Amino acid sequence: MARLPKPIQNLIEAFQRLPGIGPRSAARLTFYLLHVPQEEIERFAQSLLSLKKETVTCSICFNISETDPCVICSDFRRNKEMICVVENPIDILAFENAGNFHGVYHVLGGAIDPLNNIGPDEIRIHELSQRIKKGDIVEVILATNPSMEGEATAMYIKTQILKIKTSFDFAQDKQNSKLNNLKITRLAHGLPVGADIEFSDAITLSRAIEGRREF
Amino acid sequence: MARLPKPIQNLIEAFQRLPGIGPRSAARLTFYLLHVPQEEIERFAQSLLSLKKETVTCSICFNISETDPCVICSDFRRNKEMICVVENPIDILAFENAGNFHGVYHVLGGAIDPLNNIGPDEIRIHELSQRIKKGDIVEVILATNPSMEGEATAMYIKTQILKIKTSFDFAQDKQNSKLNNLKITRLAHGLPVGADIEFSDAITLSRAIEGRREF
Repeated sequence: MARLPKPIQNLIEAFQRLPGIGPRSAARLTFYLLHVPQEEIERFAQSLLSLKKETVTCSICFNISETDPCVICSDFRRNKEMICVVENPIDILAFENAGNFHGVYHVLGGAIDPLNNIGPDEIRIHELSQRIKKGDIVEVILATNPSMEGEATAMYIKTQILKIKTSFDFAQDKQNSKLNNLKITRLAHGLPVGADIEFSDAITLSRAIEGRREF
Repeated sequence: MARLPKPIQNLIEAFQRLPGIGPRSAARLTFYLLHVPQEEIERFAQSLLSLKKETVTCSICFNISETDPCVICSDFRRNKEMICVVENPIDILAFENAGNFHGVYHVLGGAIDPLNNIGPDEIRIHELSQRIKKGDIVEVILATNPSMEGEATAMYIKTQILKIKTSFDFAQDKQNSKLNNLKITRLAHGLPVGADIEFSDAITLSRAIEGRREF
């Protein structure tokens, strides 16, 4: 087989390192770019270079942002008493697209995953506890993924929050009445909108029955 | 919806301009890169910048190459009497991976596509005719895609080659006996290897029957 030109080979390899891009897609993208004007390729390269240089992690919610605090944490219209706990910054994008959550977020930076050596100290659970201890939070929505790791993480955070609650003497400490009444919620499971019952899996369907609502 | 940081938005848009990458994949790739070390991102950007700067078009076959002529055209082991005519450089990659073609190539740079204003003069058919007129070619394999445009292009090239043949007076011009006997072939149609007959489409199956071979 004739060897590919080195510049083409290099770019194919760079694309292949990205998730979900196999050797064929990587080649297709590379050969596509050969037809793209050099200015546009330069803009693409510049966007790559700026990605991490021009962003910071929000010191409140640990979202990726241009400013610290991030646009969400510094928005006076957002309800600071509701925290939605997510695994990764990309999950925030999904919630913001959904558009009906008006609270703030907390990015854990992953989920507890003992098989990959990720314990509770490797993700930002301590930082979440600190936010909760301040006593201004009314509800924590545990929006980790509905996977083994996500469920385990939600469970762990719940026990941590319950520990915080019991450690306070609410009789003496009136300002913590919010903390005493803190609600811990988890996203609803059920049929995806537009799905066919016929094709839904057994676990999803049984969760949908459990979570049925008055009509 | 909270606005995404500009550097993230820019990169998502850059990815989205690539073929086959929708808004969700573009976001996933961008957020993935946030976890990648800056050096690796810089290598990726550098590969993009070098892609077109460090490659040229081979003046014989019009493949993309680091050198002119390309590695295939300048390889003395390749049979210069067989030309495989392809639409795009990426098709050469597929043939080289297949590994059983030892001739040389001719890259048309597309296919005749009247709906998109691409006529015979927009692709490198004239350059192919020039190569054929030299009289050194024994076989031309028309390896344009099995699409409407690819079939039309193959058909057009065939008529052009037949015109070249009739324009020569072979009685006078002995050196052109190769041209007189020039074979024009097209890739075989049939069942893809490993495919199920049950799931093959009617056209492919009827082509497979037409092209059946003694066993």
